[in-house]
Amino acid sequence: MARPQTDIEAGQKKILEIVEQLIRKRGAVEVTLQEIAREANMSQSNIYRFFESKEMLWEAIAENWFSDKVKIMEDVTASDLPVESKLYEFFARRFTLMRENFLREPDLFRSYCELGDQHYDVVIGYVDLGDHYLAMIISEAMDNGYFRGITIDAAVSYVNLMVHPYVNPDNLNQMSEKLPVEKLKTIIAVILTGLSADTETLLNKNKADLHLVS
Amino acid sequence: MARPQTDIEAGQKKILEIVEQLIRKRGAVEVTLQEIAREANMSQSNIYRFFESKEMLWEAIAENWFSDKVKIMEDVTASDLPVESKLYEFFARRFTLMRENFLREPDLFRSYCELGDQHYDVVIGYVDLGDHYLAMIISEAMDNGYFRGITIDAAVSYVNLMVHPYVNPDNLNQMSEKLPVEKLKTIIAVILTGLSADTETLLNKNKADLHLVS
Repeated sequence: MARPQTDIEAGQKKILEIVEQLIRKRGAVEVTLQEIAREANMSQSNIYRFFESKEMLWEAIAENWFSDKVKIMEDVTASDLPVESKLYEFFARRFTLMRENFLREPDLFRSYCELGDQHYDVVIGYVDLGDHYLAMIISEAMDNGYFRGITIDAAVSYVNLMVHPYVNPDNLNQMSEKLPVEKLKTIIAVILTGLSADTETLLNKNKADLHLVS
Repeated sequence: MARPQTDIEAGQKKILEIVEQLIRKRGAVEVTLQEIAREANMSQSNIYRFFESKEMLWEAIAENWFSDKVKIMEDVTASDLPVESKLYEFFARRFTLMRENFLREPDLFRSYCELGDQHYDVVIGYVDLGDHYLAMIISEAMDNGYFRGITIDAAVSYVNLMVHPYVNPDNLNQMSEKLPVEKLKTIIAVILTGLSADTETLLNKNKADLHLVS
């Protein structure tokens, strides 16, 4: 039983490489199974042996794109690092990887991002998975006295917002040189120090005194 | 002397409206003085009475686009609000305005953003102006005991990074519904509570043993 499985996997891998070549050549234009078949010297029905539908192809492209990021999230979450470092490494390692990929082939990187926008129904699963791992780290941080008085969901949301430039691939274009990983370290420390229910009420407590427009 | 000045200003205003119509119609395609002349029923030499060069036209377009944001920054900085509220209002009012503009005419908003990317040499002056006003508020916050031990420039940089989703117009597309102004209030409070030299060294101090809890 092992052999056919391997053949299928080898065929899928080859097709994914052909798709990347097509993306490299033409940018984020929709790729049809017909084109892939032509480039792979395969009949269209043969392609279906490897990907039963176009949706499955897109899922495989996303899995390929996200696999090393998922590996980082798994590794950091399962590590025995102190939780402060886990929170930092969780974002720093993926940012460093993302920037390397961007600098190696900026146009290909941008095309993959555009395709991600076009197929966000596939990408959203990986966004949710990232939030799941982040929630695990935040829960551990709570056990260590951080984020007192706020919910895990709220903490996930605030952390994501405050490190957004290090997560959003679109920012690599505009402000890559303004984003040293060293600054992310400070931002994580600020979040760990500052984010709690006490802080959350700081600006809300005395609305009259603070003249806050809400 | 007042009359000709007014005529020039009226002519400039009319031309800026024509430019906006062109942008609305065609998106962020480069607009030529020739086209503007045609749309305005003017000779090309007449256009030069109002804008001596294309560069001056772009500067006027940017001034028009940024004028209400500059007004907000001036108002907030000069107000007698407590410094905590100043820092919040500085970002919240501009974000609210930006989102209103975006929701009113998303395509026009996006086109202006694209034109801003294309003419970043003009936009950069407004980015610097924003940093200048932010530095004034941060300096006042320092007088009130915040941001101990770090430089004004570093504080400006960290604040900008941590509120980035509320400043970057590109994010309005992707995540408008995830960005309530209420969350910005918490983020500002986290920054005021957490950003100081003590925090900055927290993750760096003992690399071997990174426990942050104080």
